[in-house]
Amino acid sequence: MKAKQKKNPFTLLEQLCQIHAPSGHEKPLKEFLINYVRREQKNWRRKPVIIEGDEFQDCLILKFGKPRTAIFAHMDSVGFSVRYFNQLVSIGSPDAESDTKLVGRDSLGEIECELEYDRENHALYKFGRPIERGTTLTYKIDFKEGKEFIQTPYLDNRLGIYSALKVAETLKDGVIVFSCWEEHGGGSVPYLAKYIYKKWSIRQALISDITWTSDGVEHGKGVAISLRDRNIPRRAFVDRIISIAQKNDIEHQLEVEGAGSSDGGELQRSSLPFDWCFVGAPEHGAHTPHERVHKKDIETMIELYRVAMKEL
Amino acid sequence: MKAKQKKNPFTLLEQLCQIHAPSGHEKPLKEFLINYVRREQKNWRRKPVIIEGDEFQDCLILKFGKPRTAIFAHMDSVGFSVRYFNQLVSIGSPDAESDTKLVGRDSLGEIECELEYDRENHALYKFGRPIERGTTLTYKIDFKEGKEFIQTPYLDNRLGIYSALKVAETLKDGVIVFSCWEEHGGGSVPYLAKYIYKKWSIRQALISDITWTSDGVEHGKGVAISLRDRNIPRRAFVDRIISIAQKNDIEHQLEVEGAGSSDGGELQRSSLPFDWCFVGAPEHGAHTPHERVHKKDIETMIELYRVAMKEL
Amino acid sequence: MKAKQKKNPFTLLEQLCQIHAPSGHEKPLKEFLINYVRREQKNWRRKPVIIEGDEFQDCLILKFGKPRTAIFAHMDSVGFSVRYFNQLVSIGSPDAESDTKLVGRDSLGEIECELEYDRENHALYKFGRPIERGTTLTYKIDFKEGKEFIQTPYLDNRLGIYSALKVAETLKDGVIVFSCWEEHGGGSVPYLAKYIYKKWSIRQALISDITWTSDGVEHGKGVAISLRDRNIPRRAFVDRIISIAQKNDIEHQLEVEGAGSSDGGELQRSSLPFDWCFVGAPEHGAHTPHERVHKKDIETMIELYRVAMKEL
Repeated sequence: MKAKQKKNPFTLLEQLCQIHAPSGHEKPLKEFLINYVRREQKNWRRKPVIIEGDEFQDCLILKFGKPRTAIFAHMDSVGFSVRYFNQLVSIGSPDAESDTKLVGRDSLGEIECELEYDRENHALYKFGRPIERGTTLTYKIDFKEGKEFIQTPYLDNRLGIYSALKVAETLKDGVIVFSCWEEHGGGSVPYLAKYIYKKWSIRQALISDITWTSDGVEHGKGVAISLRDRNIPRRAFVDRIISIAQKNDIEHQLEVEGAGSSDGGELQRSSLPFDWCFVGAPEHGAHTPHERVHKKDIETMIELYRVAMKEL
Repeated sequence: MKAKQKKNPFTLLEQLCQIHAPSGHEKPLKEFLINYVRREQKNWRRKPVIIEGDEFQDCLILKFGKPRTAIFAHMDSVGFSVRYFNQLVSIGSPDAESDTKLVGRDSLGEIECELEYDRENHALYKFGRPIERGTTLTYKIDFKEGKEFIQTPYLDNRLGIYSALKVAETLKDGVIVFSCWEEHGGGSVPYLAKYIYKKWSIRQALISDITWTSDGVEHGKGVAISLRDRNIPRRAFVDRIISIAQKNDIEHQLEVEGAGSSDGGELQRSSLPFDWCFVGAPEHGAHTPHERVHKKDIETMIELYRVAMKEL
Repeated sequence: MKAKQKKNPFTLLEQLCQIHAPSGHEKPLKEFLINYVRREQKNWRRKPVIIEGDEFQDCLILKFGKPRTAIFAHMDSVGFSVRYFNQLVSIGSPDAESDTKLVGRDSLGEIECELEYDRENHALYKFGRPIERGTTLTYKIDFKEGKEFIQTPYLDNRLGIYSALKVAETLKDGVIVFSCWEEHGGGSVPYLAKYIYKKWSIRQALISDITWTSDGVEHGKGVAISLRDRNIPRRAFVDRIISIAQKNDIEHQLEVEGAGSSDGGELQRSSLPFDWCFVGAPEHGAHTPHERVHKKDIETMIELYRVAMKEL
């Protein structure tokens, strides 16, 4: 695998996408990250302090040097919970067509089933046996790397995590926060933010997450810096990120949206004076099994985080 | 009354239902509870510490021994506020038919009036005189105990309180939190949770509240343990409750819903790393004047709380 | 200008309305307020402590004497963000007709443009050149003072701020909190409330904001005391405000609404046991460019705050 990783920098991204971790079930991804960091940190500029445990539920914090700014990347994905009979209830807002392959596991074993909809558009599963109540299902991964694009389920937000891990390699001072429940109403960011605020007086946050292409944000034109979505961050802080991108000649696009939210929304409403800015690659097919991102937008995303974590 | 209480264990439940305490007006119920605890605690395994006062608004906390887990039971009910003329505005989401009897009190005296709807389905009252602005009205209690069922308005959540008081009788270690405003957007759980977290490091919560019967949760099949509603608790914690129910042979039903919320939702979004699980009897006719619960589901609810508070 | 101020007490209100400060861009209003306070405080009964800085983002706190109660007045207004092409996205919920004049500024200079709507009712701007992404636009001020009424955009909430500044002139003990983001989902009240709670144990709040006229609240009948809106405050506290108004013969109206929110909603949901009450003049044309308030309702608003801050 090591040899393969050298050949293909996106092997790590594929591994991240493969992990079953919808909102409320982030533990497997947390465990993968802890193992990854323990194994890889010897090659990093600095070894981070790993902060985790029951007091952090399934969340994870990496602390590097003397941090001034935090990167927030959510671990959870959208998916489905099995209800009664063959009914499914959404986790977050999945957007998939009939016959999409869903995978999971209950006490009877591994599951690979298919999604279908009844006439009133309720989600159901097709499978050879009943699946236990509360079992969670996620899209089966079909990872495709082309010359320009990566296409796979769950770029949102395994790509945000991937980017954060790439930034970690050379990070001198900063915190990386891996959060839970972002796709389904949140609940971990308030205490994670409180911890880093109390511990290191951090009030600056960059949201490492994926946005969507639109009539103003296109594939291959660089990382998106969001001026607003459903939430409006303090303009003074966003302007600093823009000027760092300009000064360092990092190709970027300014996003202005009226809808959509992120871990930034939770920081906004938290009882702490956090400044935050969403910085992430745009994708086509958000929350579908066919999320697609341009490689150039991934590269510029990582680049911008590298310089911003230095200059902020 | 004491003699009667021995004959009928549900006299206390009826008393609780009779108290007028819609969201924002929980004081009378709090006062009833304080008096009840002061009178009954001599018969309990342990005398709790009673925590209340201006800093807790109209909320109430009972602390037993060395607590590890909290029971949250909300005191408020749905109802109506009198607006202008004969108009009513909802408190929470009441669901009642025309001619439902509503009761309350303003400076001119006791009120018993009737609900009606205009053509656009606005709620109005019929009464012989104008009622003062802001007066709160609740369903008139019609408590019916049959062989198998209890039917009355406000089982949600006087039954959750009743169950908590039954559990209190033999509770060795634990906290019981009586909260406000649950039916109308919340507002007390965040500070109550903060208090018990700071004081006794409590991060485990059971939500003593009432859910609904559905195509997967039926009357008389035992207490419901909810795997999710609108909110998704951390699966690892919910699995512990399920295994306690299984190990102790307590009849129970697993619930999976996409809608509905509880004090658990406020814990989820709070700035504390609380694990929570909704454990409660299912009812028919939620938020109507005809809420109905099977006695077996009440018994198994109390049983499960008793063992869970020991084993968690 | 000084001479003019003596002639017309509403010059300050007009100045406040002129300041461009939609949600997320409150800095200019904060700076105006700091300058105003520094200049005027020599004429005040007490000089306040001015609390501000990065830890408070663009918010501002004035502390007088030994405070027991806080006045919350939000600085931000509704408006628009420029999206792509000639598209606009709402900040808060503006309500304006086609051809409304909008003003702002981007790196190319001052902007005065016009609002229009396409067939699907999307907001657009008409202007001789493209406006930079993320530029914020607000209604052009047209301040009209009649014999009985003031009409201008942004009485919500520059009038709430004006009233607080008038109350400041004679305030002995109290805190005035100037908050951000109220029109767009909030985000500053939780940390502002936490600060004044920790620092001075304040748990009482009056919300200095503007409500609307309705079938039960009319122009010229006195300040509105709200018994509820979308949120329901604790009745015991609201009753104290009402009795202060009654005892002091201050003309007032009791409001009961099912919708609408304010900084009070954020206090309600915060992790602090705040009691709060909305006290403000009613206006016609909320969030339009033609907000109108009766002068008598302004006078009684200021009067009620003066006595309430003494007696609470």
